[in-house]
Amino acid sequence: MTEQLFEHVKNNFGITFHDNELLIEAFTHSSYANDHRDLTLKNLERLEFLGDAVLELTVSEYLYKKFPELPEGQLTRMRASIVRAESLAKLAKECELAQFLCLGKGEELMNGRKRPSLLCDVFEAFVGAIFLDQGMETVMDFLRRVLFPKIDSGAFSHGMDHKTALQELLQKNGVVTIAYQVIKEIGPDHDRQFVVEVFVEGDSLGTGKGRSKKGAEQEAARVALQTLEKNS
Amino acid sequence: MTEQLFEHVKNNFGITFHDNELLIEAFTHSSYANDHRDLTLKNLERLEFLGDAVLELTVSEYLYKKFPELPEGQLTRMRASIVRAESLAKLAKECELAQFLCLGKGEELMNGRKRPSLLCDVFEAFVGAIFLDQGMETVMDFLRRVLFPKIDSGAFSHGMDHKTALQELLQKNGVVTIAYQVIKEIGPDHDRQFVVEVFVEGDSLGTGKGRSKKGAEQEAARVALQTLEKNS
Repeated sequence: MTEQLFEHVKNNFGITFHDNELLIEAFTHSSYANDHRDLTLKNLERLEFLGDAVLELTVSEYLYKKFPELPEGQLTRMRASIVRAESLAKLAKECELAQFLCLGKGEELMNGRKRPSLLCDVFEAFVGAIFLDQGMETVMDFLRRVLFPKIDSGAFSHGMDHKTALQELLQKNGVVTIAYQVIKEIGPDHDRQFVVEVFVEGDSLGTGKGRSKKGAEQEAARVALQTLEKNS
Repeated sequence: MTEQLFEHVKNNFGITFHDNELLIEAFTHSSYANDHRDLTLKNLERLEFLGDAVLELTVSEYLYKKFPELPEGQLTRMRASIVRAESLAKLAKECELAQFLCLGKGEELMNGRKRPSLLCDVFEAFVGAIFLDQGMETVMDFLRRVLFPKIDSGAFSHGMDHKTALQELLQKNGVVTIAYQVIKEIGPDHDRQFVVEVFVEGDSLGTGKGRSKKGAEQEAARVALQTLEKNS
């Protein structure tokens, strides 16, 4: 099984560990170590502690450089949506890591191998092990394969408001000017509606209506995102 | 003022920035940028976002390597006590960073220059700027000057239980064997008390009494810590 793990890591991610024990540690759940106390195995938790911080920094640096105009609040929100357990569990699945996890009997019976929090842990521990054994550059290579392309394609922008999502999508390939303009006000004072048009580098990408200027801007951004999606 | 900042950073931390703008950005509070909108200044918030993650990783790696026997839970608690706002604000004070902070008028009047959360922000932003401009190795050099010696001296172990604190103190200079042994049980069954003795590398460092074995162990560790403190 460990041989297959080494092969998997080598074939899929191009990584050959110097210290295979570290790789095994990253795939040893505490329940397995507890079931085999006589072997005094190290479990993945310390590597998970380290990997969590490695991911925090690599993702932060990537976002910081990729979105030079995005304010701190948006960066923080985006980072949170990337490093949260569900997202990392999904990555663990896509990397097909779960099959190599050493689980205790009880945990196995309770379907632990499919539990998102556990998959997240093993992903973090794996990243921690790569960091310790290979260094930061190899971690970045790994994330360039499995994570960064997802950020580029906007997979983590869904939690954002439409204006931010539009900004992020458009600024993927550099800074662009996005402007919102009220082009019409409809109805009497007590029931006023605004129509806002969004311009990207001077070209109209859509209009939106709303009871406030902000609401109309959000709606215009949503329409623009739809238009861009259809045309991509 | 900026010249003085460059001098301060060079003289106290041995760092000469390639990009001085980045250093200035780390000391520009949003309130100052808002007061001077015409200058379209960048404020420190994006660097703070990055520096926060840089600290998270550097501290994690340091703890991971320094305490090879400490379980994940203890590492996490210790990391939290190091990177929390109060601790970082204290570091900012010791590094005498506040004097160079560009604050808006309102913030200045409200004594912002002394507010812990603000001092923490500037420390994180400064670390973020060092990371971007100089790289990880210079960040580590900086932390070896201002932070890691504090960890070594146990400044962040106070929130820990006595057994953990003892372990950390003793393992500063390498792994040692700490053993707890019940040496006496006192009283009748319904009012039993335990006396535990703590041995370090075979030598007794103290005893403790308690209504449970765990309690007696904690008490023995507390006594051992006191003894060590007196003798240091």
